[in-house]
Amino acid sequence: MNDLNKRIKFLLEIDKLKEVVRNSYLISQGRKENSAEHSWHIALLALTLLENTEVKVDILKVLKMILLHDIVEIDAGDLLVYLDSPEILKAKREREQASATRIFGLLPEEQGREFIALWEEFEDEKTPEALYAASLDRVMPLLHNIQSAGKSWQENNITLEQVVNKNSKIAKNCPEIWSYLKPLIEDTFKKFTPSISTNSK
Amino acid sequence: MNDLNKRIKFLLEIDKLKEVVRNSYLISQGRKENSAEHSWHIALLALTLLENTEVKVDILKVLKMILLHDIVEIDAGDLLVYLDSPEILKAKREREQASATRIFGLLPEEQGREFIALWEEFEDEKTPEALYAASLDRVMPLLHNIQSAGKSWQENNITLEQVVNKNSKIAKNCPEIWSYLKPLIEDTFKKFTPSISTNSK
Repeated sequence: MNDLNKRIKFLLEIDKLKEVVRNSYLISQGRKENSAEHSWHIALLALTLLENTEVKVDILKVLKMILLHDIVEIDAGDLLVYLDSPEILKAKREREQASATRIFGLLPEEQGREFIALWEEFEDEKTPEALYAASLDRVMPLLHNIQSAGKSWQENNITLEQVVNKNSKIAKNCPEIWSYLKPLIEDTFKKFTPSISTNSK
Repeated sequence: MNDLNKRIKFLLEIDKLKEVVRNSYLISQGRKENSAEHSWHIALLALTLLENTEVKVDILKVLKMILLHDIVEIDAGDLLVYLDSPEILKAKREREQASATRIFGLLPEEQGREFIALWEEFEDEKTPEALYAASLDRVMPLLHNIQSAGKSWQENNITLEQVVNKNSKIAKNCPEIWSYLKPLIEDTFKKFTPSISTNSK
């Protein structure tokens, strides 16, 4: 198979990401969003919010990472971000690693290696690009929850404390954005889950 | 309203692109695809097929264009690409221009102008980046049709001649990709619409 054939095979395979359903609802609340349209949205966050982060980044690398970051979910599925025991995370990483090997393995070898390296860099959250991309990946679910009266938080019995702890990376890498979000998150919990909100203070 | 507030308002507004339904079916044929997940897919085509085009491009600019190119459909809707009489195209462009003014107008002024300029450059198909992006925007619907036995072509009574004429920009800008696609397109028509295929030869 020549290189173009391999690339087309990969591009057809990743069509399946449009059928991986996430926990977040669209703002219209008509349905849950899928990981492909989510990836598009996060890429636009990255482009649009560049002046609102403390991190200096190579935006092309950020966009590549974001476009690729969820493809492993085709085999591994999307996991609620608050399910984060070490055992669950270890099993998740193993499933995702196998998925990366299979799906990026469809590409010509060098390109497959490049895409896997970008995905691993995103997962490891060490470089400025990965820190910015991973923070934005958390921003949008917060906005979706704020807009939908905490619908996904309520469905999964998530507390304000969990939301604040889980999203501390936004506070660190994009403090201006976190200052904007935090009171809105607190208001959402106050309005719709008063007992949980009080308990978690 | 400060700049961050304006940007968030824009990013919430474009969530609606996930509800703009296109004519192409997912490869699984479970449903038609939407313009947000389509934009993600085309961005990945751009990243992946860079070695298979004749055009030398600034890939960051290409990605920006692709991520932004369908946002105007939130107000203007998606139009079947084969509906291309001058009157229809003129009315479409007017609706899209008004949509661009409204939606990109939510952003801080300079950023809004930058995004509109990228969208206009894409639409005008004159620069190498726009030619590459616009060609890829046509490649994926062809692949979807090839994979789904021409489902969307059949539904809209599209002929082989229309498909070949409408996609000549791929032949010009990405001849290697067109050489790959053309026999597959012909085969699809032969198998599923034998009378139309014969007539159009």
